[in-house]
Amino acid sequence: MADKTGIWLVGARGAVATTVAVGMTALQKRAVDRVGLVTELPMLRELPLASWDQLVVGGHELRRGNLVDGAAALARDNRLFTPELLAACREELVEIDSRIRPGIHFRGGDAAPAGQDATRRVESPRVGIERIKNDLLDFRQANNLGRVVVVLLASTEPETPRAALPDRWGDLRLTLETNAACVLRSSSLYAIAALELGHPLINFTPSLGSDCTAIGELALERGACHAGRDGKTGETLLKTVLAPMFAARNLEVMSWVGHNILGNADGRVLDHPEHKQAKLQSKDSALSKMLGYDPQSLVSIEYIKSLGDWKTAWDHVHFKGFLGTPMTLQFTWQGCDSALAAPLVIDLARLADHAARRGETGALTYLASFFKRPYGANNEDFFSQLGTLAEYVRGVLEGDPPRTGS
Amino acid sequence: MADKTGIWLVGARGAVATTVAVGMTALQKRAVDRVGLVTELPMLRELPLASWDQLVVGGHELRRGNLVDGAAALARDNRLFTPELLAACREELVEIDSRIRPGIHFRGGDAAPAGQDATRRVESPRVGIERIKNDLLDFRQANNLGRVVVVLLASTEPETPRAALPDRWGDLRLTLETNAACVLRSSSLYAIAALELGHPLINFTPSLGSDCTAIGELALERGACHAGRDGKTGETLLKTVLAPMFAARNLEVMSWVGHNILGNADGRVLDHPEHKQAKLQSKDSALSKMLGYDPQSLVSIEYIKSLGDWKTAWDHVHFKGFLGTPMTLQFTWQGCDSALAAPLVIDLARLADHAARRGETGALTYLASFFKRPYGANNEDFFSQLGTLAEYVRGVLEGDPPRTGS
Amino acid sequence: MADKTGIWLVGARGAVATTVAVGMTALQKRAVDRVGLVTELPMLRELPLASWDQLVVGGHELRRGNLVDGAAALARDNRLFTPELLAACREELVEIDSRIRPGIHFRGGDAAPAGQDATRRVESPRVGIERIKNDLLDFRQANNLGRVVVVLLASTEPETPRAALPDRWGDLRLTLETNAACVLRSSSLYAIAALELGHPLINFTPSLGSDCTAIGELALERGACHAGRDGKTGETLLKTVLAPMFAARNLEVMSWVGHNILGNADGRVLDHPEHKQAKLQSKDSALSKMLGYDPQSLVSIEYIKSLGDWKTAWDHVHFKGFLGTPMTLQFTWQGCDSALAAPLVIDLARLADHAARRGETGALTYLASFFKRPYGANNEDFFSQLGTLAEYVRGVLEGDPPRTGS
Amino acid sequence: MADKTGIWLVGARGAVATTVAVGMTALQKRAVDRVGLVTELPMLRELPLASWDQLVVGGHELRRGNLVDGAAALARDNRLFTPELLAACREELVEIDSRIRPGIHFRGGDAAPAGQDATRRVESPRVGIERIKNDLLDFRQANNLGRVVVVLLASTEPETPRAALPDRWGDLRLTLETNAACVLRSSSLYAIAALELGHPLINFTPSLGSDCTAIGELALERGACHAGRDGKTGETLLKTVLAPMFAARNLEVMSWVGHNILGNADGRVLDHPEHKQAKLQSKDSALSKMLGYDPQSLVSIEYIKSLGDWKTAWDHVHFKGFLGTPMTLQFTWQGCDSALAAPLVIDLARLADHAARRGETGALTYLASFFKRPYGANNEDFFSQLGTLAEYVRGVLEGDPPRTGS
Repeated sequence: MADKTGIWLVGARGAVATTVAVGMTALQKRAVDRVGLVTELPMLRELPLASWDQLVVGGHELRRGNLVDGAAALARDNRLFTPELLAACREELVEIDSRIRPGIHFRGGDAAPAGQDATRRVESPRVGIERIKNDLLDFRQANNLGRVVVVLLASTEPETPRAALPDRWGDLRLTLETNAACVLRSSSLYAIAALELGHPLINFTPSLGSDCTAIGELALERGACHAGRDGKTGETLLKTVLAPMFAARNLEVMSWVGHNILGNADGRVLDHPEHKQAKLQSKDSALSKMLGYDPQSLVSIEYIKSLGDWKTAWDHVHFKGFLGTPMTLQFTWQGCDSALAAPLVIDLARLADHAARRGETGALTYLASFFKRPYGANNEDFFSQLGTLAEYVRGVLEGDPPRTGS
Repeated sequence: MADKTGIWLVGARGAVATTVAVGMTALQKRAVDRVGLVTELPMLRELPLASWDQLVVGGHELRRGNLVDGAAALARDNRLFTPELLAACREELVEIDSRIRPGIHFRGGDAAPAGQDATRRVESPRVGIERIKNDLLDFRQANNLGRVVVVLLASTEPETPRAALPDRWGDLRLTLETNAACVLRSSSLYAIAALELGHPLINFTPSLGSDCTAIGELALERGACHAGRDGKTGETLLKTVLAPMFAARNLEVMSWVGHNILGNADGRVLDHPEHKQAKLQSKDSALSKMLGYDPQSLVSIEYIKSLGDWKTAWDHVHFKGFLGTPMTLQFTWQGCDSALAAPLVIDLARLADHAARRGETGALTYLASFFKRPYGANNEDFFSQLGTLAEYVRGVLEGDPPRTGS
Repeated sequence: MADKTGIWLVGARGAVATTVAVGMTALQKRAVDRVGLVTELPMLRELPLASWDQLVVGGHELRRGNLVDGAAALARDNRLFTPELLAACREELVEIDSRIRPGIHFRGGDAAPAGQDATRRVESPRVGIERIKNDLLDFRQANNLGRVVVVLLASTEPETPRAALPDRWGDLRLTLETNAACVLRSSSLYAIAALELGHPLINFTPSLGSDCTAIGELALERGACHAGRDGKTGETLLKTVLAPMFAARNLEVMSWVGHNILGNADGRVLDHPEHKQAKLQSKDSALSKMLGYDPQSLVSIEYIKSLGDWKTAWDHVHFKGFLGTPMTLQFTWQGCDSALAAPLVIDLARLADHAARRGETGALTYLASFFKRPYGANNEDFFSQLGTLAEYVRGVLEGDPPRTGS
Repeated sequence: MADKTGIWLVGARGAVATTVAVGMTALQKRAVDRVGLVTELPMLRELPLASWDQLVVGGHELRRGNLVDGAAALARDNRLFTPELLAACREELVEIDSRIRPGIHFRGGDAAPAGQDATRRVESPRVGIERIKNDLLDFRQANNLGRVVVVLLASTEPETPRAALPDRWGDLRLTLETNAACVLRSSSLYAIAALELGHPLINFTPSLGSDCTAIGELALERGACHAGRDGKTGETLLKTVLAPMFAARNLEVMSWVGHNILGNADGRVLDHPEHKQAKLQSKDSALSKMLGYDPQSLVSIEYIKSLGDWKTAWDHVHFKGFLGTPMTLQFTWQGCDSALAAPLVIDLARLADHAARRGETGALTYLASFFKRPYGANNEDFFSQLGTLAEYVRGVLEGDPPRTGS
């Protein structure tokens, strides 16, 4: 396994991507330990995954700015990264920054990031896709890469109604020719570009990306694999661990309230109602599936500037025990969003790269434990999702043939 | 399955046993739904378990008093049970009360319940055991029972050092002849009595009960089965769900602090240092096994009278994520101890009865998910313990022969 | 002080009023202690307040039903009141119920209580006011009362824009003749009725009631006194205690987030956006006044059915200390809304009765500590508000002449 | 007011003192705003307090090390101070460090800081006191200071039983001649040294310092002033704000549980039972005084290494409202201990300097709001303590003569 793999981050100067850039550099320099990386756990270390030195980071971004300043701002505002670490990584961050290309912007919603370059609006979706493909081809060639894993990390888009989407790739493809005909948004154009080139696609955002039947068909047609949707980093992770516990003890959840507050760019975008809607849908869908009934459920996300990247969630679970006795579990989660998400991005890039090397195609359903709304999986229980991953690893080690989507 | 099974509660007028008595009656009358009962979940409903009408409750108790008054006090002080339910169950509670016999008291520690009948101190452990056996035989005969499941529910005893215990039943048995020679305490005498009669024994307390090699040998010798130790109802349940989550995400737990406050008799006993020690040991042992390393850990239990049966736990988990970023999870659990424990007691009695009918012997390790320190199991992870139970059920349904201990 | 005083509750079968009825009865029977009653504190016990036996409860209500069933439902759903207490108070509750008259309904908003009697819609505001006055006169006569304190307890109405209200009573009065001309809602009609009769008026709700210049003028004209707005029972009470603490230590509050969840009728009404708006305004206005600057602030109230009368608030205060160090205070308040509000209603009725006896007129600003948006007071700090009350008591005891509004 | 004032920190390289040194430097450079400084609030800014440039920092320390490294370690371990700030203050920190003299060690208890210089044990208490006085005189002379405020910041000592202390200074003084005769510990020797020189003394620690009748007599004799005991920075501050709220609403506190966890040197010392005892006494005494009765109360402090300087407190207040309804308030406080304490140290030094300039003597009881166990004050309520301070300021501004102790 001598060749190299690119990690192409869409939203390459956002907080998560910046943390990926700093983290990848720190790992390559052996300047940090492997805490937070799932692929470094005993279970997954058996797989022949790319080493740190085989991974090269690049990406698309709408905003101006540079990674060094962005990382310094993250460090200052969130007490994230030590100054020593930033100083040690400076040179490599400049290099990664030089591989960032201006992204495209297509129906991104009201809350698209300020400071974006208006010229990035595309004449047609197809034109945008071709620009992206050119950038990916350049990245591959310039860095002599065996393949490129494209990871969607840009801000949450408004929800696209599924009813508006054609079921067949042939039909959807036709809508790409004019702006008027196309209901897709940027995230899906990036996804189409990646998959048309046969590259693996990871959708770490709540946006649509490749999560529709027609784009799934494209992936299979090109022999590409993909996984997503919406990285499971904090409150939802806890939900998918705790709800099965209530179910396993036959304790009846009467209501589950979750309030999330955060102050990063992600939070600012979610302050726009149509963007928030997409996010809330992600966070809420799992509960009734895990419990087998539908308790009253409330999820809110609010932008609180002072918190920066520190997402704080308060969950209040009101449940009924034996003889109808009402009881309560409350938790408060105080997590640094980028530090939770970045290692999962690296994990997913390594696992998607591995899948592509093996010739796997279609939705990588065994990656469900990483996502809030896992592609093609109908299992919301975290430990059960982990079981699926463990089974996959066992299969690979025992020589199973690659899984191909249907 | 026409015959009846007795549930013999040691500590039959304590809060948990009182709730079992009210709950069993309410279930027999179809006056409550099945919330809180694990054996009523789809997974376990396939097993041929005893129906509510086949179960008869009796027990031993040191304290005077009666179940009707005790239940009324529990209702008043803890806002547990509705007055309607108590009124409906009154007659049956009087009947159960009539089946309660004075218990024995042997080296119970400083905090043995006040008001106990001094005459219950026994001349020798063997004399105590024989008295218990007589009571069990009477119970069985008077109620025409196929078998009796003995469930230990009495107050936590001081820890007995394992080093002081002989490894062979033959040697231990000899020590039962004189008070001076015997290091066992009441809980183990009850366990020996049950097992010598071939009855299943459930140790729901943190006390030793049958949890030593020599008594395990006795169980096998008599073809009896047993399970325990210390019902997993609240904070520890959460720990065995959350710690595996941190492990699965490679998040490093730096410290885990758990403070428990409660105001019932169990709490009052734990206020005595030597009794508390036994309890804390139960609560703390699991963590490093689940994580694979040993974070700083602190568990406290304090008696706060005003809380009554409402155990409140505050846990503070300080963990390290990617790039060394420190983060925090806190939870507060407000649970009614008796309402959490009672249905598990009923579940365990039904499952142990089922095991005995099948001829299973020795430690029922597949019941690990019910306990803080599961007999014979080395798995602390709740969902993995549940997997073992599911596997057992599958085996039974597929016609596997009964498991016999080794 | 031989004569009697009536307490007329508008919304007389709601949860708070029901608790007032049970509580007053229990106090008259000496069946409960005086916990929760501010007027029973040493500071206020010096005042010649009406004794329990001098107080007679009646009221208006739109909903059908009766107090006995309502109290039983409150007890069952919220584990409030013991069955013994309810049984002991049954007869008196029936009697109070017989004094409840059908209320009126005028522009009550979308969320006006279901089951209301449609015939209570009035032909004109003035007709409604006269009906109310007749009921009050009947109540006074039938029970031989020296005076009647009217207390508004009905569900929150939508906010009425102040700009739409005339400044002079003469002008406002004219608008009462036709439905079309009048922007007031029911709460203000009740207030006008009380004040026109010279009775004291307590506005315990977030609704407008008498809180406008013109109705204030009416009060002075008739020599009546009034106080309000929106009883300060839980989260806001804490806010007005904690915000001054941050101010006094020069700790800079960067953001204050408060999420309230509750499941009673009050909560159900607040689920309607226009009603909620009025409530949130109450809860939020105080913060910047107490701090002297305007931190980001968020308050939400959500209806969570399972909680019933148990209002749970989670507040997250993010503040900056020396050298810009960000720190956090979080609190969770679990209070039974009716049990918190009812004693304050009794306190306010006694204090308003006392004021009326003394001949005080206009806004009783020394009652600010009881309210979220105190009439005529510009002091939000709870302890400073208490200081004003203490000063008033001192003045009364030292023989100061009655305060009359200006 | 042209002359300069020294601030002499006993425990000059501990976390609080280091933060004082960094903070004073930053204030002198106008590199930080005045958040956290009580003396910068409008109420106190009227007083003629020393400006930043008039203050010079020095101190005693047992441990080796230097302020620059200590500050860097604090920044790294606790995400306290930005690297930019530390870089800017470096030169001044070196200078302050050069003014630190080796302290003395006398009966400091088991947990006296490791790495201390054994030679600092003194031949007799009097010898130790004279050494301290020499250091203070040198400091004053070398820096041309008008006066020196001595601030005790060293680790908590074991409690000294009051019964063992003579009531008269004349008697206590005699015990200072031999180690055997003297029951005082280091903190009191420092206090005596300061007061014998007529310098103001601030006891910010839970240790005895000058808090006994005999040393109080010394202060008066020398015309010196002093204040203390145990800076009120976090959980106790909240307690003295919230308990009066419960009292003012006649809500009966049934139990108050406070668990504190922290990981700094202060925490490590408190892990030793005899040291912890002194601290707990400070934290607990106030409750029953504020409430007027004695609820069950529990306070714990535990050393949790990973938390560093971030003290986290969880308090659970169980209270009873109207009709006996039990309710709950919980709070979690996450504060950086040094950042909370340091500005108060600066405030107290300025206020004590001001008092000394005015010729005030004895216990400065108007400083009660700064302390957990205020010298000579019997008022525990925070806002009432603030009232005393406001009254003092008013008096000063109106030209009252200096207060002298009695």
